[in-house]
Amino acid sequence: MRGEPLDAETIVSATEEVLRRHGPEKTTVLDVARLLGVSHGSVYRHFPSKAALREAVIRRWLDRGREDLATAVRASGPTAPDRLRGLLTAMFAAKWAKAREDPELFATFRVLAAEHSSVSSAHVASLLAQIRAIVVDGITGGDFAAGEPDVIARAVFDATSRFHDPMHAAEWRSPEIEREAEGVISLILDGLRAR
Amino acid sequence: MRGEPLDAETIVSATEEVLRRHGPEKTTVLDVARLLGVSHGSVYRHFPSKAALREAVIRRWLDRGREDLATAVRASGPTAPDRLRGLLTAMFAAKWAKAREDPELFATFRVLAAEHSSVSSAHVASLLAQIRAIVVDGITGGDFAAGEPDVIARAVFDATSRFHDPMHAAEWRSPEIEREAEGVISLILDGLRAR
Repeated sequence: MRGEPLDAETIVSATEEVLRRHGPEKTTVLDVARLLGVSHGSVYRHFPSKAALREAVIRRWLDRGREDLATAVRASGPTAPDRLRGLLTAMFAAKWAKAREDPELFATFRVLAAEHSSVSSAHVASLLAQIRAIVVDGITGGDFAAGEPDVIARAVFDATSRFHDPMHAAEWRSPEIEREAEGVISLILDGLRAR
Repeated sequence: MRGEPLDAETIVSATEEVLRRHGPEKTTVLDVARLLGVSHGSVYRHFPSKAALREAVIRRWLDRGREDLATAVRASGPTAPDRLRGLLTAMFAAKWAKAREDPELFATFRVLAAEHSSVSSAHVASLLAQIRAIVVDGITGGDFAAGEPDVIARAVFDATSRFHDPMHAAEWRSPEIEREAEGVISLILDGLRAR
């Protein structure tokens, strides 16, 4: 990469690669610079500290797939129940895929997410906002019973913890997990439906 | 305790005390015998191995409160929705109390439960059976919509993981946890209700 202009995106990608190889404890800015063939000063020009760099990495990791999620929701059908089912199914599938493909990197990102809890909170807030938007549509359109959208969105998020909270990653290897998720989604949709 | 006849219950209590003091790694049968003022042979007459002793401890820990749960369900009202709410609320409250009162002992018991997964599975099966029994009553009595009781009981259990799975113990310190549990219970009861 020597000679190419160094941008933040390239540094974040290199950091992810170093994290993959060495784990969160042993990853230093110097390792990242070495992989890029630049001085560590060049990295610090984009990220003032190791913490800032790690925060950028976890933010990109959490944001990755946000577009796919929006696409899945649009593709899942016209009604609010269809779209809520589409959002939850896509949200679980994305997490399960990340955890299964590279369990060690997934564990590394759990450590980073815990370190940068404001980034994780923003990620959760974004998911809650997406659930809430569909809930509001469903109430407005008469598919869902009346209720307080914030409370309902939170209940939907909490009732599906087992399927999206990284704490449960080991359970996602179970052959039953898809069927169990389907059982909870159906229970939730029945709970939201207008009577 | 020297001189008293040694029974299994006394040994299990002493083991719990030693676990509380030393943690799961450092607890030995010899420590238990020493606390009781007996030879380790006396302990082995009741429990053929350290594993068998630890298993008895975790079984009693998990079973403790089963009576309270049954009492709470009976006290919570005549209808199936009342009783399901009563069961879930009492189940969460019992776990939260254990985790808050003595977080270190709770962590110790998580280690033991992971070691003796057949005991944990039996505990989960017993909770699922209690949920299932109320679901069957609700369907029979016309309060709940028709459905497959096993699937529904599992969905209720999974949808409430955040409030009873020891993995989430750190979240139980949140002042919001009770309100969040209430949101999920209401969503579940709405989902089960006959239309």
